[in-house]
Amino acid sequence: GIANYREILGGQIGSAIMKDGNPLTLHYVMFIPTVMGQGTYEQQAEWIQKAWNCDIVGTYAQTELGHGTFIRGLETTATYDPKTEEFVIHSPTLTSYKWWPGGLGHTANYAVVVAQLNTLGKCYGIHSFIVQLRDEETHKPLPGIKIGEIGCKLGMNTTNNGYLGFDNVRIPRKQMLMKNNKVLKDGTYVESPSSKLTYGTMMFVRVVIVQDAADYLKKAVIIAIRYSCVRRQSQPKPDEPEPQILDYITQQYKLFPLISTYYAFRYSATWLWDMYNNVSSELEAGMLDQLPELHALACCLKAISSTDAALGIEMCRLACGGHGYMMSSNLPTTYGLVTAMCTYEGENTVLLLQTARFLMKAWQIKVDGQKLTPTVEYLQSARDTVYQRNVHWIISTLQYVAARKIELAWQHMNERIQKGISSEDAWNQTSIELTAAAEAHGRAFIVSMYCTTMEDIKKTVSKPLRLVLIQLLDLYGITTAFKCLGDILRFTKATGADIEDLQLWLEELLTLLRPNAVGLVDSFDVRDEVLSSALGAYDGNVYERLFEEASKSPLNSEPVHKSFDRYLKPFLKSQL
Amino acid sequence: GIANYREILGGQIGSAIMKDGNPLTLHYVMFIPTVMGQGTYEQQAEWIQKAWNCDIVGTYAQTELGHGTFIRGLETTATYDPKTEEFVIHSPTLTSYKWWPGGLGHTANYAVVVAQLNTLGKCYGIHSFIVQLRDEETHKPLPGIKIGEIGCKLGMNTTNNGYLGFDNVRIPRKQMLMKNNKVLKDGTYVESPSSKLTYGTMMFVRVVIVQDAADYLKKAVIIAIRYSCVRRQSQPKPDEPEPQILDYITQQYKLFPLISTYYAFRYSATWLWDMYNNVSSELEAGMLDQLPELHALACCLKAISSTDAALGIEMCRLACGGHGYMMSSNLPTTYGLVTAMCTYEGENTVLLLQTARFLMKAWQIKVDGQKLTPTVEYLQSARDTVYQRNVHWIISTLQYVAARKIELAWQHMNERIQKGISSEDAWNQTSIELTAAAEAHGRAFIVSMYCTTMEDIKKTVSKPLRLVLIQLLDLYGITTAFKCLGDILRFTKATGADIEDLQLWLEELLTLLRPNAVGLVDSFDVRDEVLSSALGAYDGNVYERLFEEASKSPLNSEPVHKSFDRYLKPFLKSQL
Ligand SMILES: Cc1cc2nc3c(=O)[nH]c(=O)nc-3n(C[C@H](O)[C@H](O)[C@H](O)COP(=O)(O)OP(=O)(O)OC[C@H]3O[C@@H](n4cnc5c(N)ncnc54)[C@H](O)[C@@H]3O)c2cc1C
Ligand SMILES: Cc1cc2nc3c(=O)[nH]c(=O)nc-3n(C[C@H](O)[C@H](O)[C@H](O)COP(=O)(O)OP(=O)(O)OC[C@H]3O[C@@H](n4cnc5c(N)ncnc54)[C@H](O)[C@@H]3O)c2cc1C
Ligand SMILES: [Ca+2]
Repeated sequence: GIANYREILGGQIGSAIMKDGNPLTLHYVMFIPTVMGQGTYEQQAEWIQKAWNCDIVGTYAQTELGHGTFIRGLETTATYDPKTEEFVIHSPTLTSYKWWPGGLGHTANYAVVVAQLNTLGKCYGIHSFIVQLRDEETHKPLPGIKIGEIGCKLGMNTTNNGYLGFDNVRIPRKQMLMKNNKVLKDGTYVESPSSKLTYGTMMFVRVVIVQDAADYLKKAVIIAIRYSCVRRQSQPKPDEPEPQILDYITQQYKLFPLISTYYAFRYSATWLWDMYNNVSSELEAGMLDQLPELHALACCLKAISSTDAALGIEMCRLACGGHGYMMSSNLPTTYGLVTAMCTYEGENTVLLLQTARFLMKAWQIKVDGQKLTPTVEYLQSARDTVYQRNVHWIISTLQYVAARKIELAWQHMNERIQKGISSEDAWNQTSIELTAAAEAHGRAFIVSMYCTTMEDIKKTVSKPLRLVLIQLLDLYGITTAFKCLGDILRFTKATGADIEDLQLWLEELLTLLRPNAVGLVDSFDVRDEVLSSALGAYDGNVYERLFEEASKSPLNSEPVHKSFDRYLKPFLKSQL
Repeated sequence: GIANYREILGGQIGSAIMKDGNPLTLHYVMFIPTVMGQGTYEQQAEWIQKAWNCDIVGTYAQTELGHGTFIRGLETTATYDPKTEEFVIHSPTLTSYKWWPGGLGHTANYAVVVAQLNTLGKCYGIHSFIVQLRDEETHKPLPGIKIGEIGCKLGMNTTNNGYLGFDNVRIPRKQMLMKNNKVLKDGTYVESPSSKLTYGTMMFVRVVIVQDAADYLKKAVIIAIRYSCVRRQSQPKPDEPEPQILDYITQQYKLFPLISTYYAFRYSATWLWDMYNNVSSELEAGMLDQLPELHALACCLKAISSTDAALGIEMCRLACGGHGYMMSSNLPTTYGLVTAMCTYEGENTVLLLQTARFLMKAWQIKVDGQKLTPTVEYLQSARDTVYQRNVHWIISTLQYVAARKIELAWQHMNERIQKGISSEDAWNQTSIELTAAAEAHGRAFIVSMYCTTMEDIKKTVSKPLRLVLIQLLDLYGITTAFKCLGDILRFTKATGADIEDLQLWLEELLTLLRPNAVGLVDSFDVRDEVLSSALGAYDGNVYERLFEEASKSPLNSEPVHKSFDRYLKPFLKSQL
């Protein structure tokens, strides 16, 4: 099923085959899931088999030049013509051109196209349509279809993201995905009982992103830690050899927290995946209760994990000094793939605001004295407790801080509304605090989920391993606490002395983890082929590999580059 | 003079000519300054004229595969042969290969090579030598010289950074740069009165980096703010058109502080440049008093400005949503150039530790009751004062915080030493706090320098302009305070209510600045050719430009890419 394809296309094996993005990802991660999620059983029967077999290759064409975040604003139209029982797909403006779909440039011959549905003179908003783009034999774009590749990007340059315009292209009625809403032969529009049913695919991809972000971060950490054991630099003590740079506490501080970040994200991803599967089955049965909660959590976890993983990968790169800047370290490419996750499938700020909307409702429920759902129950129970050197204090403190930030944002928004400001403007004016509250909520969740998962794992592993795993959990807790230090000191009774102890605890943990650092990243068991890094290979032959990679540069094929005679020599000989 | 070449090679005109780095930069920024700084008058007479005329093109070959930060560990040797009065330059190992010098791959025919000087059987440490690399007519590498290009990098892919190995290459004695230390004909080594005299060039480049970081950040901010006025997205109010995304407070919060960051860095750069010129003349006169202070400040300002500018540019890119990820936005390339500054000319962590070393000495001077030099005088005078809504409170609070962090690091280091830990280990164990203290010192300096400079500027500008400039200064102060919020609450009597007021002040300033945001970035007066961005052009024709750039993609030259018949078709037709 899809879970296996995730393995192939995601951070692991997939990235070894196609280092900088795969043109088939959209086929598996968006095209097929969308047909499955929004197609009728007949439509699934017709299309899924072909797609699984790769008789056809699909992509997902939603975003347009002019609209990404605001999909209700898409301009592409699908107008029903009852005479021929066809939809006419059309791009009325330049900004309505589809822009971004992966694999669209040269690979896909079909697409799910999202367009404004018009029938019998009325617009019913956006719906999804299966559109054939290219001839299955010749691969030529079909009449009325204009396709191209969008050009170079920061990364993902092997995905051939494309653009797509339609000049009144006709498709049969049955190619509108009609599991939920339908257009009958005569053009009558029949609405589904719940429009929320289409949330499924979107949520699926966000769940996948949390895991992928963790996996890419993992690769970067393996590379940086292995390199930091090979690399020796500086000579603090005149009579001793240069230390491995991993012996510098600043280096440990850059890297060790990222090992634990991998675990933290992975456990949140697992929880999210289980919850997603739960909610999906409930949705099938028409139950929608848990959907808002899943949605709110998927949004902020996607935002936090993609942001932190991208920053973490850059931290790994910078921690490798100059050599990290080489493409052969594979760290720049890894960053390019992960920072894209901050934007696609919901821009992170926009996602945090969606979580915030849920949290504002939750706080209102609390104020009204009603029962809170599980992931926000802490808004009721969180307490400000006296500092203790353990992760439970950190978790309860982070929850207390999140509750206070949610409360404050709620209060400020209501004050603005009471002053006569419209609710939309009040929302906007409070949005810095709203996004910060959503982030605090997500961070508290991640640490507490990490801790909960460890409670189970602790029971199953040997005592020495347990010790190390708990050190990592503690380290993640501390570094999260330091990230939120301003808030903790603002909202709780924590003191300067407490922070001094936290700092000591941090330093102790780094020292304790040092002997196991390499073992920990080796245990991730990522093959050299998957790491694809001159700095991170298992054998540690860093310098040989860097040199070998450089030798492959096409610029080294001749001792004097052809540009010399053409440009450089005349320049040198000229009188400046 | 050099200052003019900075204009051409640096962030402005240079980046328009060579978007992704210039192979001649090292010639002007390192080769010539090094010969001027370390060469005798005769050497300057011989080489500078040729170099200025570009009869020869030089690079600066210091870093090796195995050593960047720790230059004392360089392995390349220069062994003096009194019989022929030559130095023999040699690369004894793979790790001793020079690696990184800009323009070395294909452009330069000369280099300043840094090598371990051996004469009469003794090693005297690293010295600089002018070495011819290529034939001036044919450009062929000279016998014994192995040159190549190091391969693809995250950025700067038009600088042809190179590698360089020597197989017993002989150069005349007079090509050792001998302004300071000398080797006489018979091989006698004559030491200079002060080895600090060679600090000049290194410091020069760090000063340049602060200004360049500011200039690149400026470009990114112009692009992001202009785009944010063209881009309209989402529809908060059902009956109104989509707002310009710059009307979202979160968007303003991402971008407006970066306008002020540009000014902040620019004023620090100006101060640093003046101080550099001062100190340089004093050095010529044998006065070394101000050198440590300049060194300490150049280190932390280079570290902070490169880090913040890189983060700021990424913030700009992400704030442009999907289109920021296009190379045609020019934001990815700009990031690539600036993030490199975090590593070259002193890796940022290493630089912060150098500043910290100065600060530890300064604190000791304070403890000993002696007089402090100007840039650390605040360690004596800083006070914790009651919150007031103005930038002066912020500055004195940041200084107070920096003083406390310096004190705490000093105290913790000494406690460790008293416990019997060696001073080197104590230094390492305290290094997280040491780097944080150096950063706090630098941040306090930047805001206070910004404020001081504004005091002068205020007098010369119209009242409406003055108002806006003060808003920007205040905004920079507030955002710095929020960056240091944990520390402020940890070390001062600031309260939760104070922070709430700070937040309100921030929100008010964003709203006040909104009408002038475009005017402010237009006033930077950067031409479209220099911005090179589809998103940032003055006319705002974003979508047309994006499309036009995409049309240029070589992948769009044929409707069906040649890979279809070769790979994709067989794949589609196969039975999976
Ligand atoms: C590498 C990559 C691959 C992609 N692949 C695909 C694909 O296969 N198929 C596809 O259909 N699309 C794809 N996309 C498009 C992607 O889904 C959009 O770019 C994404 O949804 C962000 O939308 P946007 O570009 O419109 O950003 P914008 O919405 O324009 O964001 C710009 C800025 O505006 C702010 N903003 C916008 N709305 C609000 C609001 N209401 N409140 C506050 N701030 C706001 C944002 O925070 C951001 O700072 C891809 C994009 C990338 C980068
Ligand atoms: C784009 C680019 C262009 C360059 N151009 C040139 C050029 O033209 N000529 C030239 O000679 N060189 C050039 N360089 C090389 C550059 O000067 C070095 O990469 C830089 O000095 C950093 O040194 P490193 O690579 O040895 O890093 P490393 O020292 O190996 O750093 C790796 C890690 O070790 C840590 N570390 C190292 N020492 C210590 C310590 N004592 N205490 C705590 N932590 C420590 C660092 O903080 C970092 O996290 C260039 C580099 C780049 C990226
Ligand atoms: Ca307090």
